[in-house]
Amino acid sequence: MRICRFDRNRIGLVVGGQIRDVTAVLSQLPAQRYPFPTHDVFIDALPGLKEALEREAASASPIDLDSVALLSPIANPGKLVAAPVNYASHIAEATADAATFPKEQLRRIQETGLFLKASSSMCGASEGIRLALPDRRTDHEIELAVVIGKTASKVASSDAMSHVAGYCIGLDITLRGTEERSIRKSCDTYSVLGPWLTTPDEIADVGQLDLDLSVNGEPRQRANTRDLVLSVPQLIVFASSFYTLHPGDVIFTGTPSGVGLIRSGDTVNATITGLGQLVVKVS
Amino acid sequence: MRICRFDRNRIGLVVGGQIRDVTAVLSQLPAQRYPFPTHDVFIDALPGLKEALEREAASASPIDLDSVALLSPIANPGKLVAAPVNYASHIAEATADAATFPKEQLRRIQETGLFLKASSSMCGASEGIRLALPDRRTDHEIELAVVIGKTASKVASSDAMSHVAGYCIGLDITLRGTEERSIRKSCDTYSVLGPWLTTPDEIADVGQLDLDLSVNGEPRQRANTRDLVLSVPQLIVFASSFYTLHPGDVIFTGTPSGVGLIRSGDTVNATITGLGQLVVKVS
Repeated sequence: MRICRFDRNRIGLVVGGQIRDVTAVLSQLPAQRYPFPTHDVFIDALPGLKEALEREAASASPIDLDSVALLSPIANPGKLVAAPVNYASHIAEATADAATFPKEQLRRIQETGLFLKASSSMCGASEGIRLALPDRRTDHEIELAVVIGKTASKVASSDAMSHVAGYCIGLDITLRGTEERSIRKSCDTYSVLGPWLTTPDEIADVGQLDLDLSVNGEPRQRANTRDLVLSVPQLIVFASSFYTLHPGDVIFTGTPSGVGLIRSGDTVNATITGLGQLVVKVS
Repeated sequence: MRICRFDRNRIGLVVGGQIRDVTAVLSQLPAQRYPFPTHDVFIDALPGLKEALEREAASASPIDLDSVALLSPIANPGKLVAAPVNYASHIAEATADAATFPKEQLRRIQETGLFLKASSSMCGASEGIRLALPDRRTDHEIELAVVIGKTASKVASSDAMSHVAGYCIGLDITLRGTEERSIRKSCDTYSVLGPWLTTPDEIADVGQLDLDLSVNGEPRQRANTRDLVLSVPQLIVFASSFYTLHPGDVIFTGTPSGVGLIRSGDTVNATITGLGQLVVKVS
């Protein structure tokens, strides 16, 4: 199942390259008053909503993908977790360019741990990337993004994948500089998610996905998730050994080599096998 | 005004050392459906609710503080921002102990930037601190916590303080180790806030507040906010130059010297001038 959010908080299923509006299913989620849940209630309820989503889609008129504004498929993530230096190829290119990548940012992931991106930095494809500090170098980083489906605390390796609600493409937009990652990667619009959420049953092997990113048609990043240092289940085990993951939390799994700068006016085009294509403008 | 959250999401005003239950005022905040707001709607609405809160308090029976379970005064923070190495005294003690504090963690705050703590790590005084990895050293850090009251983006110094909804005591509980701060300080219960939110009109000068922390009655940290490297308005300017701050976002302003370890069974007692006393058990 491929689930998108579009226009003014509408929910759609993506079927054969078109959208079926299934927003009516949201009426099954109760209205709530302050304080609101601190996890994503739609992702939490997803297993129980799948039949209703499919039923609603069957009777919905198809809408052209090109005619809608795609939002982040996750509306209420509690936290955006991200893996640094998780492809050997990116470590190699960064080590070779000490002027851009300070040495202390290039230790092994097991020593560096995971970092956080502000939830307020999240956006969808249609919203575009707005350069926060145009005088400083800002880079694209394509990443497989894993969306957590159920509460995960100190999860065992054998049980890790049962906590996944789905996958999408993530752009971990990054200001270069001396600061810790959690501020350089948290500017507004610096965590692009999309084009939609793809559930695990649609993906044969999440450890064998091609990633491709181009800027204005020029190839920049090309890799395969088989080269992840910590795999998807290993990242879930690692993260959940420090803190609880909740439904709707997102793990950005790290970027391969080929990171490069983006400028106002650029168009970033990112694809991952089975997850669709993310087209994002930079301003 | 001193506003607390207690028991099962009740709201109270703290008056003369007792609580007046003003939860009825929450009926003025509309019920909402998914997707829920990504900021704190109570903090956002606070300026318009103050009269109703005072009216409700005037007719409420007083409740003993000792008889309630205090929660974090903020229920729905979008992000917890935190300042590293923001007191000269803490920099000095950390520099003298290289075994505990790796060198790369001790650069100037202007170079290091701010970091993030996971919102899922937040708790109130009554919930207690649960050591996540008991085999590793875990430290207390008392900090002045600033709660943002209105949207702040690229704020000018002269306007910074108008974005503050109030203050409370923050404990930035910290696992020591090589990892980036945003994971070591984000374990569940590692961001204690309380005992309540104190509005700015109650505080003569936020740059002249004494901080005191003891463990099991033994003094550990004693400082004054006049020794902050970046002051409260400077932190708001700095943070908002990178990303937008939203109502309910919290800025932990950094810890002074005297950080030390906590063990299961300890009781941490923290006070800041005018903000009350936070008593938290460690398990």
